[in-house]
Amino acid sequence: MLQEHCLIWVVGGDHRQVALARALADDGHEVRTFALGPCQGLERETLAGIEDAHCVVLPLPAEEQGQLNAPLAGQYHSIEEIFSALRPGQLVCAGQVGAGLAARAGQRGIVLRDYFGREELAVLNAIPTAEGAVQIALEELPITLHGARVLLLGFGRVGRALAPRLKGLGAKVWVAARSCIQRAHAESMGLESEGMERLAEWLCSYDLVVNTIPAPVLGVEELAAMKQGVLVMDLASRPGGVDRTAAKALGVRVVWALSLPGRVAPVTAGRYIQQTVYHIMEEELGGKV
Amino acid sequence: MLQEHCLIWVVGGDHRQVALARALADDGHEVRTFALGPCQGLERETLAGIEDAHCVVLPLPAEEQGQLNAPLAGQYHSIEEIFSALRPGQLVCAGQVGAGLAARAGQRGIVLRDYFGREELAVLNAIPTAEGAVQIALEELPITLHGARVLLLGFGRVGRALAPRLKGLGAKVWVAARSCIQRAHAESMGLESEGMERLAEWLCSYDLVVNTIPAPVLGVEELAAMKQGVLVMDLASRPGGVDRTAAKALGVRVVWALSLPGRVAPVTAGRYIQQTVYHIMEEELGGKV
Amino acid sequence: MLQEHCLIWVVGGDHRQVALARALADDGHEVRTFALGPCQGLERETLAGIEDAHCVVLPLPAEEQGQLNAPLAGQYHSIEEIFSALRPGQLVCAGQVGAGLAARAGQRGIVLRDYFGREELAVLNAIPTAEGAVQIALEELPITLHGARVLLLGFGRVGRALAPRLKGLGAKVWVAARSCIQRAHAESMGLESEGMERLAEWLCSYDLVVNTIPAPVLGVEELAAMKQGVLVMDLASRPGGVDRTAAKALGVRVVWALSLPGRVAPVTAGRYIQQTVYHIMEEELGGKV
Amino acid sequence: MLQEHCLIWVVGGDHRQVALARALADDGHEVRTFALGPCQGLERETLAGIEDAHCVVLPLPAEEQGQLNAPLAGQYHSIEEIFSALRPGQLVCAGQVGAGLAARAGQRGIVLRDYFGREELAVLNAIPTAEGAVQIALEELPITLHGARVLLLGFGRVGRALAPRLKGLGAKVWVAARSCIQRAHAESMGLESEGMERLAEWLCSYDLVVNTIPAPVLGVEELAAMKQGVLVMDLASRPGGVDRTAAKALGVRVVWALSLPGRVAPVTAGRYIQQTVYHIMEEELGGKV
Repeated sequence: MLQEHCLIWVVGGDHRQVALARALADDGHEVRTFALGPCQGLERETLAGIEDAHCVVLPLPAEEQGQLNAPLAGQYHSIEEIFSALRPGQLVCAGQVGAGLAARAGQRGIVLRDYFGREELAVLNAIPTAEGAVQIALEELPITLHGARVLLLGFGRVGRALAPRLKGLGAKVWVAARSCIQRAHAESMGLESEGMERLAEWLCSYDLVVNTIPAPVLGVEELAAMKQGVLVMDLASRPGGVDRTAAKALGVRVVWALSLPGRVAPVTAGRYIQQTVYHIMEEELGGKV
Repeated sequence: MLQEHCLIWVVGGDHRQVALARALADDGHEVRTFALGPCQGLERETLAGIEDAHCVVLPLPAEEQGQLNAPLAGQYHSIEEIFSALRPGQLVCAGQVGAGLAARAGQRGIVLRDYFGREELAVLNAIPTAEGAVQIALEELPITLHGARVLLLGFGRVGRALAPRLKGLGAKVWVAARSCIQRAHAESMGLESEGMERLAEWLCSYDLVVNTIPAPVLGVEELAAMKQGVLVMDLASRPGGVDRTAAKALGVRVVWALSLPGRVAPVTAGRYIQQTVYHIMEEELGGKV
Repeated sequence: MLQEHCLIWVVGGDHRQVALARALADDGHEVRTFALGPCQGLERETLAGIEDAHCVVLPLPAEEQGQLNAPLAGQYHSIEEIFSALRPGQLVCAGQVGAGLAARAGQRGIVLRDYFGREELAVLNAIPTAEGAVQIALEELPITLHGARVLLLGFGRVGRALAPRLKGLGAKVWVAARSCIQRAHAESMGLESEGMERLAEWLCSYDLVVNTIPAPVLGVEELAAMKQGVLVMDLASRPGGVDRTAAKALGVRVVWALSLPGRVAPVTAGRYIQQTVYHIMEEELGGKV
Repeated sequence: MLQEHCLIWVVGGDHRQVALARALADDGHEVRTFALGPCQGLERETLAGIEDAHCVVLPLPAEEQGQLNAPLAGQYHSIEEIFSALRPGQLVCAGQVGAGLAARAGQRGIVLRDYFGREELAVLNAIPTAEGAVQIALEELPITLHGARVLLLGFGRVGRALAPRLKGLGAKVWVAARSCIQRAHAESMGLESEGMERLAEWLCSYDLVVNTIPAPVLGVEELAAMKQGVLVMDLASRPGGVDRTAAKALGVRVVWALSLPGRVAPVTAGRYIQQTVYHIMEEELGGKV
C-alpha cells in the first residue's frame, strides 16, 4: 500500500469509483471527487485545485463518445473540460484508454496511464467475473451446479478463475482450448481437456457451455448439436463467440455477460482499481511524493 | 436404482413432482400423473387405475389445510379423494407427513412412508439449499464472496454443505456452534470455530452471517453489534433464529430463505426424491415387484 | 479451553503424551509427568502428590497386558501401582479403556473416563489418519495422486476426511458403501458411489484401493480382479478387511496402516487429546475447580 | 495424441524413459530402446536401424559430462556415439539441452529439440514437484499439515501448483513475492501475500517455509528469525535460495528437494514427456509421417 499521504482526485464513473474514493479516504489520503454524485462530502462543484493532485483517477472506461463517463453525475462533461484543468506532467490513471484519448493527453503533456491494461488488475478482475458467471448459472439453471456438466471454451484468466469455483460447487468441468499450454493448465487443475476441432461432435452432453474466446466458436453446427435445455454463457468481449441469430432460430438460450466486475461487485472492483492505481503511483511518482 | 419395471402414480405437487415423473419414466417405469398439470402425456383426468400402482408418490408437503398440495392443477382435490381411491396395503410415499395425515392413512390400511424424514434425502437436500444460499449471497452483496468474512451459526448438514462451497469461492468462513462435536467437524474442515456464548462481543467483523439454528440466536444485542452493511441470511425453519422486528428497527438487512431446493433447483430436487422413493420401494416391496 | 489453573498429572505414553504435557503447561496449568521420560523438568520420580491432581491423564491405550503403556519410561509400572496412589473420586482420563480396567477403577472409586471413545476426538483423529494415508500413497505409488483412480471402501469419518484431501491432490475418487446414507454423503461431496455387491466386477480400473470397513471385504475374488500394480491400503482396525494370505499369493501389494495419528503427527495427536481432556474436565469438574 | 504409427527410439535415461517407452508402445508406436536396460523386449544391443526412426528421444538431462545419461545401462556411451549413428535432418528430442550439445547436433544437421524448455511440460511437471513437496512435509513434520502455517517464497508455476494442494490438506498458506502480478495470482487463489522486503520481521510464525526463488533469499538474518522447529524446504534449482552454512550453524532444518518429478512419480513424469514429444513431433513432422 502507498504509505505517504497524497491528494487524489476521483473524477466521473460509477459505483466502482465511489468505492475507490471511499477506500482511498479510508487509507488516509486526501480525496476530492468530481462528477461522481454526492459522495460522503468528497464531491466538488468545480475542478478548482485539481492541478495540485498527486494523481487523478478517471473511470473505466474513461470516456464515452468524447464525454467523460459519469453516469452518477447530473450533467455532461467533456474530456477536454477535465484535461484543460490539469497541469503538464500531472499523473492521470484511466481505464481502457483508446488511441484518441492517449493522443489528446500527450498533446497536453499529461502522463496518462491505463490501469485496465495492467496484468495484476486483469488477474484480480477475473475473480468477480467468475463469481458473476456462477451467479448467472445458479439463477438460470433448473438443476444444481453440483453434478452439472460444464464445458469451458478457452482457458485464460477467466477460465482459470471460473473452473475451481465451479468444481468447488460440485460441477464436472471440461475444457476445450486450442493451445497445448492452456490444456496443460487445465490438466494441472485436474480438468479433462480437448482441442477445438470437431467441437460439434462431442458437446451434446453439457448442461452449461461457457465461452471465453473472443472469436466465432459457437456457430450453427455447434449450437444445433447441443443438449435440449443447455445454457450458453458468453463472457467474451464484443462481438463475443456465439452466433446469436442461429441460437435464436434454434431456441438455444444464450446469456451474454459483459463487464461483470462492476455489475456484481462494484465495491470489490473499486478496491482492485485502487490497488492498481497505487502500483502506478509508486512507479511514476516513486520518492517524489 | 430399482431394476424392475413398476407402475407409479405421481399425484399433485410442483415442478419437483414433474421432474420426478419424467425421471421415473426415463428409467423405464410406467408413470401416471394426476393433479400435476399437462406433463408429457402422463396426466390422467381421473384416479381410475391408481389402485394398481406399485407406489403412489404425493408431494412435499403432501397437504395444505386438508387439500392436496397441487399448485399446478386446475382445481382443488381433498386428501380424502385421493385416499379413497387407494387399496388397503398400498404403498404411498409423501413428504412432511403430519400426525393427522398419518392417522387417516392408518385408518384405511395405507402404508404411508415419509420420504422427507429420511436421512439420505436430508443429506442430499443440503446441496441445493447451500447453492441457493450462495446464489442469494452473490445477488445481495456488493462485494465478492472471495475475501468476504462469513459466519455460520450452527454446523449441521446445511452448514457442512455450505462451508466448503463458500471456501471454494474464496470466502473466509467461521463457525459458531454450541456442540463440541459440531466444532470438531468445523475444525476438521479447516474452519475456526467458537461457542455461542458472548456472540455479540465478536460478530462485528462479518460481511455475511448465515443462521441455521432453529432457535432465537440473533436478538437485538447481536444484531446491534453487527457491521454496517452486513447481510443476515436465515436458513432455519419457522420461526427462524432472527428477531425480525429488531432487525427492521436497526436497519439490518435479513433474508429469510426457506425451501430452497424446490425453488432454486426443482429438477435436481425431484431427482433426489426419486432416489429416496426407490429406497423406500426396495425396503417395502422387496422381492414382491 | 479450560480457564482455571489446574494441577494435571500426565502418566505414561509416547510422544503424544509428551506433546500433551507441554501443551497443558503452555496453557498455564501445573503439570507433572510420571513414566514419560525426561520432559522439560516436568518428570517426577515417584507418584507422591498425584492424589492432589485435578485430573490424571493415562495414555492411549492406557495399558498393555496389565502394565502401564509407557514406552519412553526406563522401567515397567503396573496399572495397580498407579491406581493405588490415587484417591477415591479422583478424575482419570484414559484412552481405549477396556472392561477390566474400568472394573478395577470402579472398585477403587476412581472416576475413569475414556477420551478415545468420544465423538469429537474421533472426528479430529480422522485428520491425521487421512494425512498418514496420503503420505503412504505418495510414498508407495510410482504415479502422481493427481489423476490416479482411487476407490474408498466405506465412507465413515476417515473416508470423509480422506476423500477431499485426495481430490485436493487431483485424484479421481470413487466410494463403495453399503449404506444409502453413506452414499448420499459421498454424492454430496461430489463423488460417484456404488453399493458393495459385485465389487469384483468393477474394481479392475483403480490404482489405489483404501479400505476402512472392519469386515472381510477384499477376498481372493476381489484381489484377483484388481489392476496390475494396484496398491491396497487397509485402514480398518484389526483384523482389517483384506485377506492377506490371498493378497500375498496373488502378488497384490497391501499396506496395513494402523494408529496413524500417533505415528505421523504425534504433536497434533497430543493436542487433540488435550482438547478432549478439557471437555471431560469441564463436564466432570464444572465449577469445582 | 499423435495418430500415425511411428518408429521411435528411446535412448538412455532412468525410469521416466522406461515409462515413456512403454507408454509409446501402448499407443501403438513401434519402439526400440537403447542403453535403458531390459525393457519388455524393446531393448536393442546396437544402434543399428536408429537412422530410420521418426524421432529419437534422449533423457532428461541428455548428457552428464559428455556421456549419455544412462543410469540403467550396463556401460557408458558417449553422446558422439549416439549422434554419429543418426542421419542429417533426423528429429531428436532431449531434455535440458545445453549450448554444447546444441552445437554438436547443429554440426551434424540433426534437428534437436529440447522438450524440457517447453511451457506445457513445465506446467505439468509442477504437479509431481508439488506432490513431492507435500510428501516431504508430511514425512518431516511432527504436526499435521492441517492447521500448519506455511509460507511460500515466490509464486511461479510450482508455487501455484503447491498452494492449492497445501490448502486442500488444511494448511494455512501465505505467499511472499516481489512481483505485484504474482501477488495478484496469490490473492486470486485466496492467499494473503506480502512483498519480500523485511522478510525477517514477520516469518517467525511459520511451521514450514518453502522457497521456490532461485536467488539468495533466506540468509542468516531470516533463518535466525524463524520459529523453533521450523522446516525449510528449498525447491529452487542450484544454487538454491538458502544459506546452508548459516542454517547448519543455527540448527535450522533444511531439505533441498531437486528433480522431484523423476524421483516421486517416474511413471507420470515419463507420460508428461511423452505428451510433449508428441507435440514436438506434430510441429516438426506434421503431415510427413
